[in-house]
Amino acid sequence: MNYPSRLIEDAVSEISRLPGIGKKTALRLALHLLKRDEQQTRGLSEALLKMRTQTCYCVKCHNISDEALCNICKNPKRDTSIICVVVDTRDVLAIEATSQFKGLYHVLGGIISPLEGIGPSDLNIDSLLKRIEEAPADERVQEIILALSPTMEGDTTAFYLQKKLKPSEVKVSTIARGIPIGGDLEYADEITLGRSIVSRVAYD
Amino acid sequence: MNYPSRLIEDAVSEISRLPGIGKKTALRLALHLLKRDEQQTRGLSEALLKMRTQTCYCVKCHNISDEALCNICKNPKRDTSIICVVVDTRDVLAIEATSQFKGLYHVLGGIISPLEGIGPSDLNIDSLLKRIEEAPADERVQEIILALSPTMEGDTTAFYLQKKLKPSEVKVSTIARGIPIGGDLEYADEITLGRSIVSRVAYD
Repeated sequence: MNYPSRLIEDAVSEISRLPGIGKKTALRLALHLLKRDEQQTRGLSEALLKMRTQTCYCVKCHNISDEALCNICKNPKRDTSIICVVVDTRDVLAIEATSQFKGLYHVLGGIISPLEGIGPSDLNIDSLLKRIEEAPADERVQEIILALSPTMEGDTTAFYLQKKLKPSEVKVSTIARGIPIGGDLEYADEITLGRSIVSRVAYD
Repeated sequence: MNYPSRLIEDAVSEISRLPGIGKKTALRLALHLLKRDEQQTRGLSEALLKMRTQTCYCVKCHNISDEALCNICKNPKRDTSIICVVVDTRDVLAIEATSQFKGLYHVLGGIISPLEGIGPSDLNIDSLLKRIEEAPADERVQEIILALSPTMEGDTTAFYLQKKLKPSEVKVSTIARGIPIGGDLEYADEITLGRSIVSRVAYD
């Protein structure tokens, strides 16, 4: 396309490098910013740069943080005996939103995927093992919950972690697979339905 | 949501002010930038700010431009006797991509919409009339093409422009409404099909 301004062209090209945003959407966003107050663009531009340059990863759980130790790891009310292993920050936010988990997290930073060339050494696995091993006596880890997606990559990663965690004699569990709340039995796939029968829960 | 970092929260809140981008997509984009090279975020941040602060509107046609006069208005090969009236820069790009129009443009900067409180005085209409009136003898405007969407607002704007342009005795036309190329007669709506019959074109 023959853009009317080189500056617009540059902006469109930078915006369309973001995932899921094509040239047409990028142009729509650029024209939107041009119509709005200059302060909005300035705010966006500064927030992006600040986020990229000033955030870091928590030295303990590898979640994104403003300081060396994240808010969750710093919180004395969290249960240090249970660690939930997740792929990234979005999973932490999703689980936090449920208010059902009061332990700590460990963010792997990815998932084992031979197709994308991501192996165990690219993930924060060694630091998880070290965390369990070096925990002080009053903060001993008793359970690791693997909260990974039930995909080929998720299952591979879970299998690898189980093997690695075996020697530590910590209890390892996984989040339940089953029929989602509001889901319809009739439309559930065979594997999910099968698993929901195998992992049935007894009424108290 | 309880973001792990105030800087991420700020970035997500700024990104989600863009049209069509919600909090979840904004977070996905922010995490994408965090994973990439710092240079990408810097490039995006700078391109947005430069675009917003350094582009201007062409003094003649009101299209976005890097200089006082845009590339199209400056081009001596363009036909100055014919002006195509459009709503915004995206329409200019779309028509330029067809390579079927060699005249000049006039960008209204919006469309008459009483619901959104946009009246004729908010658009670049006076400057269009002035452009026709004050054109030098060798650049006299002979035709105005109204390239507006066939919506309620587009039709209202077209009707208003026709009335305003009448005294100038310039020929006023509109882009053809009809069955799109590749479209199926069976699935065309009645109004489009009706118009395509009324505006039928004789074979040469």
